[in-house]
Amino acid sequence: MGMIGGGQGSFIGDVHRKAASIDGMIDLVCGAFSSNAERSIASAKALGISEKRAYKNFEEMIEKEAAMPEEERMDIVSIVTPNHMHFPPAKLALEKGFHVICDKPMTLTLEEAKELQKIVKKTGKVFGLTHTYTGYPMVKQAREMVNKGDLGEIRKVNVHYLQGWMATAVENGDNKQASWRVDPKKSGIGGALGDIGTHAENLVEYVTGIEIDEIAADLSTFGQGRVLDDDGNILLRLKNGAKGTMSISQIAAGEENDLSIRVYGTKGSFEWHQENPNELTVRMLEEPKKIYTPGGNGTYPASADYTRIPPGHPEGYLEAFATLYRSFAKEVNQVKKGEKQSEILDFPTVADGLRGMQFIYAAVDSGKKNAAWVSLK
Amino acid sequence: MGMIGGGQGSFIGDVHRKAASIDGMIDLVCGAFSSNAERSIASAKALGISEKRAYKNFEEMIEKEAAMPEEERMDIVSIVTPNHMHFPPAKLALEKGFHVICDKPMTLTLEEAKELQKIVKKTGKVFGLTHTYTGYPMVKQAREMVNKGDLGEIRKVNVHYLQGWMATAVENGDNKQASWRVDPKKSGIGGALGDIGTHAENLVEYVTGIEIDEIAADLSTFGQGRVLDDDGNILLRLKNGAKGTMSISQIAAGEENDLSIRVYGTKGSFEWHQENPNELTVRMLEEPKKIYTPGGNGTYPASADYTRIPPGHPEGYLEAFATLYRSFAKEVNQVKKGEKQSEILDFPTVADGLRGMQFIYAAVDSGKKNAAWVSLK
Amino acid sequence: MGMIGGGQGSFIGDVHRKAASIDGMIDLVCGAFSSNAERSIASAKALGISEKRAYKNFEEMIEKEAAMPEEERMDIVSIVTPNHMHFPPAKLALEKGFHVICDKPMTLTLEEAKELQKIVKKTGKVFGLTHTYTGYPMVKQAREMVNKGDLGEIRKVNVHYLQGWMATAVENGDNKQASWRVDPKKSGIGGALGDIGTHAENLVEYVTGIEIDEIAADLSTFGQGRVLDDDGNILLRLKNGAKGTMSISQIAAGEENDLSIRVYGTKGSFEWHQENPNELTVRMLEEPKKIYTPGGNGTYPASADYTRIPPGHPEGYLEAFATLYRSFAKEVNQVKKGEKQSEILDFPTVADGLRGMQFIYAAVDSGKKNAAWVSLK
Amino acid sequence: MGMIGGGQGSFIGDVHRKAASIDGMIDLVCGAFSSNAERSIASAKALGISEKRAYKNFEEMIEKEAAMPEEERMDIVSIVTPNHMHFPPAKLALEKGFHVICDKPMTLTLEEAKELQKIVKKTGKVFGLTHTYTGYPMVKQAREMVNKGDLGEIRKVNVHYLQGWMATAVENGDNKQASWRVDPKKSGIGGALGDIGTHAENLVEYVTGIEIDEIAADLSTFGQGRVLDDDGNILLRLKNGAKGTMSISQIAAGEENDLSIRVYGTKGSFEWHQENPNELTVRMLEEPKKIYTPGGNGTYPASADYTRIPPGHPEGYLEAFATLYRSFAKEVNQVKKGEKQSEILDFPTVADGLRGMQFIYAAVDSGKKNAAWVSLK
Repeated sequence: MGMIGGGQGSFIGDVHRKAASIDGMIDLVCGAFSSNAERSIASAKALGISEKRAYKNFEEMIEKEAAMPEEERMDIVSIVTPNHMHFPPAKLALEKGFHVICDKPMTLTLEEAKELQKIVKKTGKVFGLTHTYTGYPMVKQAREMVNKGDLGEIRKVNVHYLQGWMATAVENGDNKQASWRVDPKKSGIGGALGDIGTHAENLVEYVTGIEIDEIAADLSTFGQGRVLDDDGNILLRLKNGAKGTMSISQIAAGEENDLSIRVYGTKGSFEWHQENPNELTVRMLEEPKKIYTPGGNGTYPASADYTRIPPGHPEGYLEAFATLYRSFAKEVNQVKKGEKQSEILDFPTVADGLRGMQFIYAAVDSGKKNAAWVSLK
Repeated sequence: MGMIGGGQGSFIGDVHRKAASIDGMIDLVCGAFSSNAERSIASAKALGISEKRAYKNFEEMIEKEAAMPEEERMDIVSIVTPNHMHFPPAKLALEKGFHVICDKPMTLTLEEAKELQKIVKKTGKVFGLTHTYTGYPMVKQAREMVNKGDLGEIRKVNVHYLQGWMATAVENGDNKQASWRVDPKKSGIGGALGDIGTHAENLVEYVTGIEIDEIAADLSTFGQGRVLDDDGNILLRLKNGAKGTMSISQIAAGEENDLSIRVYGTKGSFEWHQENPNELTVRMLEEPKKIYTPGGNGTYPASADYTRIPPGHPEGYLEAFATLYRSFAKEVNQVKKGEKQSEILDFPTVADGLRGMQFIYAAVDSGKKNAAWVSLK
Repeated sequence: MGMIGGGQGSFIGDVHRKAASIDGMIDLVCGAFSSNAERSIASAKALGISEKRAYKNFEEMIEKEAAMPEEERMDIVSIVTPNHMHFPPAKLALEKGFHVICDKPMTLTLEEAKELQKIVKKTGKVFGLTHTYTGYPMVKQAREMVNKGDLGEIRKVNVHYLQGWMATAVENGDNKQASWRVDPKKSGIGGALGDIGTHAENLVEYVTGIEIDEIAADLSTFGQGRVLDDDGNILLRLKNGAKGTMSISQIAAGEENDLSIRVYGTKGSFEWHQENPNELTVRMLEEPKKIYTPGGNGTYPASADYTRIPPGHPEGYLEAFATLYRSFAKEVNQVKKGEKQSEILDFPTVADGLRGMQFIYAAVDSGKKNAAWVSLK
Repeated sequence: MGMIGGGQGSFIGDVHRKAASIDGMIDLVCGAFSSNAERSIASAKALGISEKRAYKNFEEMIEKEAAMPEEERMDIVSIVTPNHMHFPPAKLALEKGFHVICDKPMTLTLEEAKELQKIVKKTGKVFGLTHTYTGYPMVKQAREMVNKGDLGEIRKVNVHYLQGWMATAVENGDNKQASWRVDPKKSGIGGALGDIGTHAENLVEYVTGIEIDEIAADLSTFGQGRVLDDDGNILLRLKNGAKGTMSISQIAAGEENDLSIRVYGTKGSFEWHQENPNELTVRMLEEPKKIYTPGGNGTYPASADYTRIPPGHPEGYLEAFATLYRSFAKEVNQVKKGEKQSEILDFPTVADGLRGMQFIYAAVDSGKKNAAWVSLK
């Protein structure tokens, strides 16, 4: 695997590297870790990558690796840059024959997302998107319970993703993350929407298996001098008639990383909280409340197969992330053996990435129209 | 105290009686416990009320008690009937010189609510409304923290009130509560809105001290054959610029009585859950998460004064309810001594009742307009 | 009902009165509320008791009430004094024909306890002991699950009762409770043992239905100048071969009132925490963890019959206490009708009180012998 | 790093490998993964290890690697075999110049433990023991709070480690773990004592910084046909006068992996639960209860430095394990550079391993003496 972005001091680059390594299926062999050539090479050194595969920029990396013999060159490109630098390397890598795994939101613009979907289709390469939270065993259990009809028909969804790290003007300090996240040139038209709203949107569609039809979004920018949203309160309508709310915020003072979801069907419901991810609370109409745990009693194989250690030994964010990398790597291996890509991919795909961009665009549009209903398309 | 409604088999009548008795300030001396005269009298007997003060209907009770010597007659009328029978006895009782405490929502229609407010003003009698949840010590602590500015300026509110008891067609069985609640002649224009939405609305305004300005309500009726809403997803805008969501449901399968609220200010936030009412979770910008308990370390007198037993000895719903009755009784005693009514009443008032009706009407109006924004007025 | 002790400023007297009133079965008609005659009468006044039934001391109360016509005099004596004043009024009241409900521990000495058991038997009066925690619906559910064999054979019990209010030298201030609790003349030979250890012991025997056979108690006195234990760590052996631990403390800094128990059988286990009493966590060998709630799905009638309000409306300490009073009052009413006393009483009895005293004596004896095993007898 | 044991199908071998890889400081280069030579080599292949470094047994591995040039050979030996196979390879590896990291309990017998301590001292090599739970950030926070005196003087410790996986006769099935754990030839004289009791003992001494002085252990063997303990209830006395309880079990039906500890000092207390490891509950005498989170507000550097991702992104068991490997690897690197070994090692050491064996021996001795007090020595 070669990595684009994620140089020294990057939070998410390190997460991707750890996640990729946990299951021992992926080796990091090269990288263009920074837009600054010197820093890129220094980062590569620190990571123990051979000097000749420490590249100055992504174009160089992709060109030079593509020129190497197949058995020596990288097979996967991992993109962990700010949003505006997702599409260009993804396009080039796919077209040069590499499989791509990319951070979210997938692209800077909706146009790019549509274009990328075409490129993925045309090239036939494997494309993965790191909506981390779908990798948690209890999220997979929730999804499978819905799939199997345990909850009956879905009627209601309440989801929130609340952080407080931007409650004050952190972007004016030396918080690198904050500074590019408030910059529409690097983030796109969504602020909190792009950073965490897309996770919430993806989680809703992942666990219910139902697409969001339209939304009514009341967006706010509480931080002085900001131009992008840092808070949103959103009504949801799903394609099957289910309804719901979404609350997202990066100014929810005191919150760390509270992504939570409750889904109600005709027969029962579940509730999951990312900050305590190893519990899935299930309420059926006629039973006492039940708490499922990873690999624990009553879990479906579609969940239990994704735990690495026995019940009661907590797994966390890195393991959820690793699960995406592992599933992606398995698919890549399958394709490398000459087999066809699977119909259903066990990780977020380019289609999910496009949904995320449609969500951002619909939300921003609705926000401008005083929270009128806007379809995702 | 005399009671109207709440005869044998009534849930809420028994709650009111227990709540009124806990602090030993109020005696039940008479009642018109049922619209059926026989049942009314049987109920009175069972409650140990003397035969001559077991009345056939509320008119008889109010007339006859009013005719008794002042030191013998009831001083308070407690109204615990279905919604359509709130206004007529309240009006008559106030006009005949009695203080009134009434279940919520305050009236059947918005018109009645406005009328009742005038009657309360004109008669100078004490009027209380039993929005139970404001009686919990941790709700009072939350309110005081906002009052004192601990949280800074309020920016965001997320509230939900979720029950599952109407997830199936309970109104077709012998559930008396369900049958009148789905009947607009007895409930008014709101279903879940009136029964639990008004509690959520009142809680928001109580803890923040800020009025809701406008709402966008997406109402649903999932139960076949129902005409009133049994679910709602609502956007909130408060008068100070804060925004939020409200999710209410009586078809949230598996839920018991989950009223929960999170409020975010510029300096910190809190979170409270009715089903575990003796914890208030507080998150300040620079501190570890804190859990306050009734009468426990760090609670303000405005909260601690409302506990009856030492920290660690849980109080519950009946005690919260009793707190309303106690505060109401204190005010009545003050007025009976000839003093003026307090400017600020320590229990929900006729003004709160009017807000609740305005909320129902705005929500129903918004719902008809595809969740367009509607002001509460 | 007449009350002995519990005058103005008393915590537990007020609890008894509220508990007795909640279900409307018991009226407080007289009292000897203080060892100080003046304070006794002042307390009676404040409670609205007629002057002629405000007694100077318990002897006067019992004598004079006994001399009244049967239909006028009190039927029950409630004893809420410090430990050394339990036996004398209990004995006199029973012998004069009154039923007695008494706070715990039952007596000052083991001798008194044995004597009292004989008196109860001889007089045929109803005697109840207020081990409050057995009144919680979830404790009753736990007990019934064991009774029905749901957990299989019991193998292990871990119980703790931890408070922190004596972590500092509160007895040197004006804390009346603390000052008599550290005084062996008023408390007896046990400190924390008597105050909270007996609750823990009773809870173990109540929920398992199995007697404790022998204990090995390592007692400590951390508070300077104290002579009684304020902390204990104890091994348990039950009569069926089950084993366990008990940890009790009143110097557990920061704790409020944490009585918790876990019981393990061959088929499953449960866990209950008094500070969050409306949840019973049940773990069966092959099922996900389940959370039972009062009156909620899956609860047995032997538990659900003890809730007063619908699921999701929390009940607390006062309701648990009230449940004891209600069951006691029912039994008294039955006996007053001339029926025989029930074989199995639905509240803690004189036999439980004796067990508590045996526990204290065995623990103190073991403590002196460096935690050697001592039988309860 | 070379690994001894942990071949295909091993739970703990995989855990060690993942833990060693997460921080990218350690490469697995060789192994003797099974006592069966064929399986050893097959395991190596599956792990991508070169054929010539897949060894038939540990003697071969150590001899051959020792014969390789220093810059090519393994530097660390990781021992993940059943207990009886800890000492022989540890001794050989140390004497041949390798650093050793070993699973717990450290040895089969107390004699071996004492001997191993001498060997470590003599050889000057780095020796680490994988008491995983000390690697959790919240355990480190707890320890630092005690170190800094935040809790005052420690008075009381309650610890339990409860599992239910041996509640039934799993050793009669094909559970390899269970079968060697019940075999004293492979496990030593302790059953649950060795497997989980040593973790509990180590956790007590780690967080308090105080040694356990003596214990009174009531051991049980509930599983039919077993010869080793599967349950224990133990009194603790620490060297500073603190007291406590320890409850351990592998027959606690329904439990997964509940290691929990509460520590009480004169000024405050904390509580931690392994199954929800990212919360540390702290109760100070005059403050509301506080919940610390990894890297969150108020955490000390001695804790926060051990998190890999921002607050609110849960870490788990593998990360705690990885922390031990990382600290061990740092120490190895320091020594390899020619520097002296640190006075205080940031991971469990041979001294901790000896304490664990002393604990097992004292507990078994006490158990035989009907839970008499026995010193750890």
